[in-house]
Amino acid sequence: MKLDEVTITRAILSEQSKVMLDYVDIDAAVVGAGPSGLVCAALLAENGVKVGVIEKKLSIGGGMWGGGMMFPRIVVQEEARRLLDHFSIAYTAFEEGYYVAKSVEAVAKLSAAACDAGAEFFNLTTVEDVVIKDDRRVSGLVINWTPVEMAGLHVDPLTIACRYAVDATGHDAMVARMVACKGGEVAVSGEGPMWADRAEAMIIGHTREIFPGLVVTGMAANAVAGEHRMGPIFGGMFLSGERAAELIRKSLR
Amino acid sequence: MKLDEVTITRAILSEQSKVMLDYVDIDAAVVGAGPSGLVCAALLAENGVKVGVIEKKLSIGGGMWGGGMMFPRIVVQEEARRLLDHFSIAYTAFEEGYYVAKSVEAVAKLSAAACDAGAEFFNLTTVEDVVIKDDRRVSGLVINWTPVEMAGLHVDPLTIACRYAVDATGHDAMVARMVACKGGEVAVSGEGPMWADRAEAMIIGHTREIFPGLVVTGMAANAVAGEHRMGPIFGGMFLSGERAAELIRKSLR
Amino acid sequence: MKLDEVTITRAILSEQSKVMLDYVDIDAAVVGAGPSGLVCAALLAENGVKVGVIEKKLSIGGGMWGGGMMFPRIVVQEEARRLLDHFSIAYTAFEEGYYVAKSVEAVAKLSAAACDAGAEFFNLTTVEDVVIKDDRRVSGLVINWTPVEMAGLHVDPLTIACRYAVDATGHDAMVARMVACKGGEVAVSGEGPMWADRAEAMIIGHTREIFPGLVVTGMAANAVAGEHRMGPIFGGMFLSGERAAELIRKSLR
Amino acid sequence: MKLDEVTITRAILSEQSKVMLDYVDIDAAVVGAGPSGLVCAALLAENGVKVGVIEKKLSIGGGMWGGGMMFPRIVVQEEARRLLDHFSIAYTAFEEGYYVAKSVEAVAKLSAAACDAGAEFFNLTTVEDVVIKDDRRVSGLVINWTPVEMAGLHVDPLTIACRYAVDATGHDAMVARMVACKGGEVAVSGEGPMWADRAEAMIIGHTREIFPGLVVTGMAANAVAGEHRMGPIFGGMFLSGERAAELIRKSLR
Amino acid sequence: MKLDEVTITRAILSEQSKVMLDYVDIDAAVVGAGPSGLVCAALLAENGVKVGVIEKKLSIGGGMWGGGMMFPRIVVQEEARRLLDHFSIAYTAFEEGYYVAKSVEAVAKLSAAACDAGAEFFNLTTVEDVVIKDDRRVSGLVINWTPVEMAGLHVDPLTIACRYAVDATGHDAMVARMVACKGGEVAVSGEGPMWADRAEAMIIGHTREIFPGLVVTGMAANAVAGEHRMGPIFGGMFLSGERAAELIRKSLR
Amino acid sequence: MKLDEVTITRAILSEQSKVMLDYVDIDAAVVGAGPSGLVCAALLAENGVKVGVIEKKLSIGGGMWGGGMMFPRIVVQEEARRLLDHFSIAYTAFEEGYYVAKSVEAVAKLSAAACDAGAEFFNLTTVEDVVIKDDRRVSGLVINWTPVEMAGLHVDPLTIACRYAVDATGHDAMVARMVACKGGEVAVSGEGPMWADRAEAMIIGHTREIFPGLVVTGMAANAVAGEHRMGPIFGGMFLSGERAAELIRKSLR
Amino acid sequence: MKLDEVTITRAILSEQSKVMLDYVDIDAAVVGAGPSGLVCAALLAENGVKVGVIEKKLSIGGGMWGGGMMFPRIVVQEEARRLLDHFSIAYTAFEEGYYVAKSVEAVAKLSAAACDAGAEFFNLTTVEDVVIKDDRRVSGLVINWTPVEMAGLHVDPLTIACRYAVDATGHDAMVARMVACKGGEVAVSGEGPMWADRAEAMIIGHTREIFPGLVVTGMAANAVAGEHRMGPIFGGMFLSGERAAELIRKSLR
Amino acid sequence: MKLDEVTITRAILSEQSKVMLDYVDIDAAVVGAGPSGLVCAALLAENGVKVGVIEKKLSIGGGMWGGGMMFPRIVVQEEARRLLDHFSIAYTAFEEGYYVAKSVEAVAKLSAAACDAGAEFFNLTTVEDVVIKDDRRVSGLVINWTPVEMAGLHVDPLTIACRYAVDATGHDAMVARMVACKGGEVAVSGEGPMWADRAEAMIIGHTREIFPGLVVTGMAANAVAGEHRMGPIFGGMFLSGERAAELIRKSLR
Repeated sequence: MKLDEVTITRAILSEQSKVMLDYVDIDAAVVGAGPSGLVCAALLAENGVKVGVIEKKLSIGGGMWGGGMMFPRIVVQEEARRLLDHFSIAYTAFEEGYYVAKSVEAVAKLSAAACDAGAEFFNLTTVEDVVIKDDRRVSGLVINWTPVEMAGLHVDPLTIACRYAVDATGHDAMVARMVACKGGEVAVSGEGPMWADRAEAMIIGHTREIFPGLVVTGMAANAVAGEHRMGPIFGGMFLSGERAAELIRKSLR
Repeated sequence: MKLDEVTITRAILSEQSKVMLDYVDIDAAVVGAGPSGLVCAALLAENGVKVGVIEKKLSIGGGMWGGGMMFPRIVVQEEARRLLDHFSIAYTAFEEGYYVAKSVEAVAKLSAAACDAGAEFFNLTTVEDVVIKDDRRVSGLVINWTPVEMAGLHVDPLTIACRYAVDATGHDAMVARMVACKGGEVAVSGEGPMWADRAEAMIIGHTREIFPGLVVTGMAANAVAGEHRMGPIFGGMFLSGERAAELIRKSLR
Repeated sequence: MKLDEVTITRAILSEQSKVMLDYVDIDAAVVGAGPSGLVCAALLAENGVKVGVIEKKLSIGGGMWGGGMMFPRIVVQEEARRLLDHFSIAYTAFEEGYYVAKSVEAVAKLSAAACDAGAEFFNLTTVEDVVIKDDRRVSGLVINWTPVEMAGLHVDPLTIACRYAVDATGHDAMVARMVACKGGEVAVSGEGPMWADRAEAMIIGHTREIFPGLVVTGMAANAVAGEHRMGPIFGGMFLSGERAAELIRKSLR
Repeated sequence: MKLDEVTITRAILSEQSKVMLDYVDIDAAVVGAGPSGLVCAALLAENGVKVGVIEKKLSIGGGMWGGGMMFPRIVVQEEARRLLDHFSIAYTAFEEGYYVAKSVEAVAKLSAAACDAGAEFFNLTTVEDVVIKDDRRVSGLVINWTPVEMAGLHVDPLTIACRYAVDATGHDAMVARMVACKGGEVAVSGEGPMWADRAEAMIIGHTREIFPGLVVTGMAANAVAGEHRMGPIFGGMFLSGERAAELIRKSLR
Repeated sequence: MKLDEVTITRAILSEQSKVMLDYVDIDAAVVGAGPSGLVCAALLAENGVKVGVIEKKLSIGGGMWGGGMMFPRIVVQEEARRLLDHFSIAYTAFEEGYYVAKSVEAVAKLSAAACDAGAEFFNLTTVEDVVIKDDRRVSGLVINWTPVEMAGLHVDPLTIACRYAVDATGHDAMVARMVACKGGEVAVSGEGPMWADRAEAMIIGHTREIFPGLVVTGMAANAVAGEHRMGPIFGGMFLSGERAAELIRKSLR
Repeated sequence: MKLDEVTITRAILSEQSKVMLDYVDIDAAVVGAGPSGLVCAALLAENGVKVGVIEKKLSIGGGMWGGGMMFPRIVVQEEARRLLDHFSIAYTAFEEGYYVAKSVEAVAKLSAAACDAGAEFFNLTTVEDVVIKDDRRVSGLVINWTPVEMAGLHVDPLTIACRYAVDATGHDAMVARMVACKGGEVAVSGEGPMWADRAEAMIIGHTREIFPGLVVTGMAANAVAGEHRMGPIFGGMFLSGERAAELIRKSLR
Repeated sequence: MKLDEVTITRAILSEQSKVMLDYVDIDAAVVGAGPSGLVCAALLAENGVKVGVIEKKLSIGGGMWGGGMMFPRIVVQEEARRLLDHFSIAYTAFEEGYYVAKSVEAVAKLSAAACDAGAEFFNLTTVEDVVIKDDRRVSGLVINWTPVEMAGLHVDPLTIACRYAVDATGHDAMVARMVACKGGEVAVSGEGPMWADRAEAMIIGHTREIFPGLVVTGMAANAVAGEHRMGPIFGGMFLSGERAAELIRKSLR
Repeated sequence: MKLDEVTITRAILSEQSKVMLDYVDIDAAVVGAGPSGLVCAALLAENGVKVGVIEKKLSIGGGMWGGGMMFPRIVVQEEARRLLDHFSIAYTAFEEGYYVAKSVEAVAKLSAAACDAGAEFFNLTTVEDVVIKDDRRVSGLVINWTPVEMAGLHVDPLTIACRYAVDATGHDAMVARMVACKGGEVAVSGEGPMWADRAEAMIIGHTREIFPGLVVTGMAANAVAGEHRMGPIFGGMFLSGERAAELIRKSLR
């Protein structure tokens, strides 16, 4: 068989334009493909929710790739060990209750799980704004290509509709800030100083629908709540992603 | 259990310093974690070879994340379909012989396979130079942190020993160029114009040990040979990675 | 009628994805939407040729917007006055044989004519490479989004097929240089010093098929031929665009 | 006839210096050559108003070139269809009430119309400040070359007088902000979140003289009013430009 | 003896990983290796305190290298002459009470003294945050590699525990600002205008524990207190470093 | 009298457009307003030659402002003392034969002299190319605004005619390089190492018409000749400018 | 006579170090060498005041070089004509009361006059801070090399004493802002919109000692007072410089 | 005693200008203050040679600060242990023949020794060129402030005379390259690939006077000779610095 460049081009354009037209209207839009966003997307998709993951960067994984100070290992505590098991991420025990995994493997396995479950990834895509109408609810996201923004070009965005948006953008809590900035009744407090124990303990409580249609998870949840900062420990992140998925699943039923 | 920041720090430092001390002397050092490098690393590790993957960027996956022109889909031809199956990457048929997969899933599954098989990843790590002594063989790599180079700082590198180095750095063929530049009998021709069919057909032949201790794979193999350019079709890349792994495995026996 | 954001998004995606899938295989690909490229594209399309214009920048018009030293006027000589008339560009006589037009109007009218005649514009699109197979002919172009290149991202390109490519990229003669660089029998001499009279007189002779499938026009034609440089006089540019269109039309018959 | 470089130079300098000296005192100065500015300028000029268009960039067209997310199509709703017809912009119906046009054609046709009607364009020209004297009215604009600002050079501006200034600078509402910043009784609220239907419905009401001598149009009008954001739909923009032209025409009589 | 690259690498990794694991829990963490930080660290270490010096830059010495306006001389007044003697820094008398030393020698001798006394230096290391738990005390520092920050990469930090942190970061008073920003009862006033005599006289009084666990010294002490600015006179800096060391030593007993 | 902004604008535009139209055809175009260019322009104008000075930067004076290593003093030797006197530049004797002047005064007096004598300055103007026709003579210069180039914009230049061009662009010898690059029989050797005595002695001999219509002066003369480098001594520069003026004056008679 | 590089170096170092040591204590420090600063410095020096001019840039002249929009002409009104005459700046009458001069000549003549009168220029020198002691008076300036700041280096400044400082830094009013920022009872209002007539009329009244030891002049005077903006008309600037010189002269007696 | 800012300024200016005037003529100018330059300077000065060290950066120490890959430890082999002892640098044995020292201490102690012995440091100073006259010997260096170059400013340099220049600029061998570039009979081969054992063994032989008046040392010596690369082992560097000092000392006698 002779390979033809134009057929390759058509295959890609044809498949992806179908996906794009289909995903302009989804159940859940997860913004940010770091640890909590990936867990949330994977678990939502495993439960049959139509989920799109919008990631600003070219690569998926967020701040997990670099471990701690470029030593590519992450730590997970006892409470979240079952999620390592759920996603088949290998680990070794350092001390009782402290499990060490490879950061690269953690990203790979979470992304693989989300793909297997049917989540669609839209990388190099930036959320520029939110859709809020007179029902005072986040009912869509205004998106653009990241390189357009990086290159400082003036190009209009497009819009997708979603029943729930998930802010998994980390300590910047970008989506929550947009809602606040556009007059939504949301206050973003910003992270407090480091205190891993407390931050991990509180994160599940902070994972909630802070504005109709907008759920915060992971570091974004703690940042909105003014919670203390965590270190390179990811149990709370995973559990927060799980919690966000549960909240949305219940609401969508 | 109270979580303690210092224990988390110790867990990461302790685990990774053990790994680093262990991996200063390895069987195969794969430079570049794009499609051919990942396939090569995964298959080597599956066969019990001690393999380290050195990736310049923070994230693993190279040029595969963006699909074609940011439409995150890749195409694989019939000949390489068995490797999609081997690594559990889902696909759909576009036309006979043209299979379309998600670019994100492809990266995730290849990385996951390499981790499962025991490969170690050293991301944010740049190869600055090669070790060549009077046996005229690449017997090690001179490495540094990528951010040190990005920040333009003057910091000395360290050295690791390897029985084989794999140049999977894409069309720049960085390691091959270093050897050429330091007087090795290697010529890097650079890619020719696009002609997918021929490029895919020839890549396996170009995958070879171009200098004692240095195997080229993927786009680097084609670039060294002055071969035509491929498009966003990845079958040849996967097969070239597989071929590189075979060559090394046989030599190491 | 209530306006719906998602319908607007669908309208744009749906229309443009149809156009993109259609235009992966065209008669003539004009690279560069400056004066000669626009004239060539307009005249080709007026004659029923399926033509796509690939422009690196966000805006169409190239170097014509700024007139001379930001004084937005251009000069056209007697020989090309009929093309000003053809495209309804207003002008005044300065001295006998020297006609002055508004640079903004010149761009607008040429672009409008090309659109009316049915040419399709692909702006923010960069030509990364050419397709040359064993027939030693430019038979396609390898394209990517310009912002991807501006942002320094690693994303694979796509490919379109064309029966003729037109290098209208100005004095850089980018496509001709790519062919030369990839081993085509093409030499790009570069412009000589300014000598408007001679440069204008010779440009039509230099407008030709310099490599099978590749026609050069405008400043690119002069640059390939090592011809003298023109000033802010555009008659020769327009006539060269016309000449390029004629050459291709005849060949395509 | 021998072409002479110096005559070409004289032709451009001579013509443009006459225009510049003439246009230091005009009826209407439209700041920003995006969709609403172009419609406003074209319709004013069609009605015999002496109008100058001041555009910061080298090219005319503003944010319309890129369509939505670089897919170069724009959408116009039923209410504004007659303006597409007025300016001879071709379109196709996507769904009832949603018409799709080429973004490149829209820019070209609007610019061409403005030129035909006699508007003068001053591109690469930045508005640095406004003239407000003791009549508390915007009676002129302080302008400079854009490249001077881009290059960070310290060069004094010049001043033009105008009976009306039109702020068509998009969501930044640059002229309105200057007036506010210099103590004018103007408040610029900034855009709200996306809600296309409402934004399109309200824009005509927001198009008004917000300070003596200063009319806002297009996105600037909505931004001043704190209105919701539109998407890549341009009907409201065109109608707002028309409305601004009407307001000024009536006042100037 | 044959030198072996891998042994060299192992020697460095092995020694430094031991030091890093040891220094995750220390008595005093001096942030900033300028004059006051170096004096403080040297005197603490001379008294048997386990002290780590965290310096953002690659080199140690801070603002002392350049003397005044790149003339590499510093001035020290009578009161601090004994510290020049203590650290064997040579000087000449300019006028009575004004002693001039070489800036390079001052840095070298202070660093040498700190090393001799057993202080450990962590250069290219940035303090990103502080650890504050419910005892409302700075009990640790959150650190990262400086090049990671310079390169704009997203990599998680690690944490070290310390009984005292010393803010010797100069007039930015970075650590004090972090505590203030995270809700600690600390106000950073910023430096006043230059008045050397007063600033030198007051600095010892401003050297104090401004928040439990956090001592400020040198310019940071004056900046926190809103004190006047000093010139290129270093006596107060040295005396402030000495005072900070005394305060900590007494508390640690 | 009431001051009117528009009259101020008209005064500037009107005066300068007359000058620009007049100076598109001149006797001598001096490129570069450093010491040798200023001396040359002043002396030419004093002798009734119509001279335009084209300076790339906003300010006139070139490398003379900074003296040596930012100490704003220059040295002039005995041979050139009479030119200091001619231009009323004050000086003091350091040793016999070495006179020291203020660098700021030197620039001011030379510029003032050139203005008094009737030279016109075109600052912020870059020479992009030369005009060479079949008489193989530099008969004009292709110029553009410097900020256009600094901002990386694509704007066409304009052309002026001149009977002589003077390359006073310093050790880059920019105009000479352009002629060489466009095929003129000119070789630019580049400066040799520093040897002030020889460089000063030879510069007058190197000041000559190196190509019909092009005279080199100052550091450009030495650079073309491959001569040794001078230090911050300006006698030779002044004498070279004087020599260039003589050569041209004689030819123009 | 043989020229010797080392003697040239010694001549420059020796002369300038004498000047620097002498000028650490002066009567008047004029900050900014634009039109008002130059007039002020020249007139002070003509009256025997020991004056140093501190200019941030390499060249003297500030914003006057570029005329209006790079057309190098300035306008001066009737009231200030006598100052043109005083400084021998040539001019032509445009309309009654509007005189046009060359911007280059204006800079050159003002600088020459200041040098002739004995003012010393310190270019490439930045004012970093002011000296204010318990007499609540600006009694000195804290200076550094500009390139040190441009290069982002950490080098300490030096200090000079002055009986009066003149803020001639233009509309930024840098010195006034420093005093305000360090707690001085000074408010900097910022310029209002353009209104040349009023701004020119009021500037002399705004030229005053706004804080003990600190006189404002030129645009800085208007900016402090919240006055309207002038255009490229320089009469007020010159008169303000003259007024500042008078104020200081009287106080110093 | 009251401290006075102006006295502090005078003290610095006065001392350093004496040093600068004295050091315009020296015995040995060591360019580069890395390990080999520091050893060479210290040993020369210990033997009574008048030596100036010219360092481009603000800080002294070159590439030694960062150890290997930011782990601040260096390795020294048996042969050079006596130099660690000579300079009182502490170390521990890792394996037989491999000694590990703190990189910070190594810099500090070498700098301190050079200061104690009487070497003068000129930091932030760049060598721009060399002095070579008809005796074909490097007899001086042309220097400038580094920030001037970093800021891209056009300021003339000054010159110092020296009997010997030492190129200790590392693998760039900057001074040797300048001589080669200006026509000296010197070839700079560039480093070969890493091979620590050989590179360390050969470095002393490569340390020599490669051109009259120019001695190369450290990595510069190996780079000139095309020698293999060393790793983060510093014995050869120290020994090469010692050898360079010996060569010069003998010649100067």
